[in-house]
Amino acid sequence: MMPEKGSLEDFLAMAVEAAKSAGEIIRSGFYEAKKVEHKGEVDLVTETDKKCEELIFNFLKLQYPDHKFIGEETTAACGATELTDEPTWIVDPVDGTTNFVHGYPFVCVSIGLAIGQIPTVGVVYNPIMDELFTAIHGKGAFLNRKPIKASSQSELVKSLLATGVGTKRDKATVDASTDRINTLLSKVRSIRMSGSCALDLCGIACGRIDLYYLQGFGPWDVAAGTVIVNEAGGAVFDLSGKDFDIMSQQVAASNPLVKDAFIEALQQSE
Amino acid sequence: MMPEKGSLEDFLAMAVEAAKSAGEIIRSGFYEAKKVEHKGEVDLVTETDKKCEELIFNFLKLQYPDHKFIGEETTAACGATELTDEPTWIVDPVDGTTNFVHGYPFVCVSIGLAIGQIPTVGVVYNPIMDELFTAIHGKGAFLNRKPIKASSQSELVKSLLATGVGTKRDKATVDASTDRINTLLSKVRSIRMSGSCALDLCGIACGRIDLYYLQGFGPWDVAAGTVIVNEAGGAVFDLSGKDFDIMSQQVAASNPLVKDAFIEALQQSE
Repeated sequence: MMPEKGSLEDFLAMAVEAAKSAGEIIRSGFYEAKKVEHKGEVDLVTETDKKCEELIFNFLKLQYPDHKFIGEETTAACGATELTDEPTWIVDPVDGTTNFVHGYPFVCVSIGLAIGQIPTVGVVYNPIMDELFTAIHGKGAFLNRKPIKASSQSELVKSLLATGVGTKRDKATVDASTDRINTLLSKVRSIRMSGSCALDLCGIACGRIDLYYLQGFGPWDVAAGTVIVNEAGGAVFDLSGKDFDIMSQQVAASNPLVKDAFIEALQQSE
Repeated sequence: MMPEKGSLEDFLAMAVEAAKSAGEIIRSGFYEAKKVEHKGEVDLVTETDKKCEELIFNFLKLQYPDHKFIGEETTAACGATELTDEPTWIVDPVDGTTNFVHGYPFVCVSIGLAIGQIPTVGVVYNPIMDELFTAIHGKGAFLNRKPIKASSQSELVKSLLATGVGTKRDKATVDASTDRINTLLSKVRSIRMSGSCALDLCGIACGRIDLYYLQGFGPWDVAAGTVIVNEAGGAVFDLSGKDFDIMSQQVAASNPLVKDAFIEALQQSE
């Protein structure tokens, strides 16, 4: 049965269709990337990024001509767009671009829809591993159509932490980053770095990892993932434990049981 | 056509058969792991580890009654076995046990055969992502039967680095680990941590990552992976740039083009 046009289910179905089509482009670029190494890797990323964003935006604009759009490529070209209360699609056409270039399989499309500034529909699709994460506000989270939930780990010392080091390589940023890892490492079981923010959030949602934090990124990296985490029974917050703000360029996530201990550890690692 | 009994091709075929059978056990445990969280995760790991090692050893002993065997489980139970010149199977039944418990998809079986103390046949199988890496000394490396090669990246600043933080959490180990990451991070493109040494070596072999190092592990983590890296045109060495020693508990790997720059960076990060 087709969902009613303009319903949340309809938004999700269209976002999935757009993500799968973009996924095809990413998949073919992914296996081509090794061939153009050195000569044209930057071009390949830019080209794939643009092609995917155009495809997604054109498709969704045709469906929903009144909706607003925020995308990494568009923002890079036209400057930042303000997030209003209007239904707004927030899209990262290729999350994990370094992985894309290197052929490391953590690459995805991230499509989120914010309504009244609240992320309401989320789709994250990894076309290499063929994993489709989806969620609608209030209606649960799914991996390849099967319900998922955040882990039930309550002890920090048994928790698996994921994070990333961003792209800035000035001394102050690198020092802050490794100092924080140093402090946290003595309190958790181990650490993983996948290079994709959207997929790490989905990792929290399906319980593969217990703790996640990242600083320095755009709203397109988190718009879809935060819906998926929340709907999987996880918690999304900022590094000081306050409410998550999609425009703030910092995010932390965990299950609710280990949240307080994680926030304390994050604060001790400042 | 069946390879001749006792040929390197025969050893490889039998190792693949053993790895695939063990992979079945790992796969079923992997999807069960989330259910036994807290109550029995340690038991599940131990049980899966033991079951897989027994299966692999029994199968290979039946084929090659005169060969020697070194395995993580057996060593844990019976103490270290010396590596002699005899054909010796060196097996990690489940590499990435933390990932196994958490449902993080970097888990594998690693089966290496050393002859005259030289790793000669290598099989690494990730049953979750269904990726089978294989190599025979002098005969190339393969991923799911297709030839693979190490990356051709020659610049450190464009290289993707993988490493791990081991399991020791005393201050000296953690400090050394994050200090090294700090120094290297300013020189490379980015860093990944997957939690599986054997799969990271295979990542070097198929060019997904350009640089890898790890300290503190057993020979079973590297016996198969080093054959695969070498046969993919990659280089395996120790952290000071000297020849790799399988019993030394430290390993570094890269393609040959970036090797010297990587060794220099590793030494500056001491």
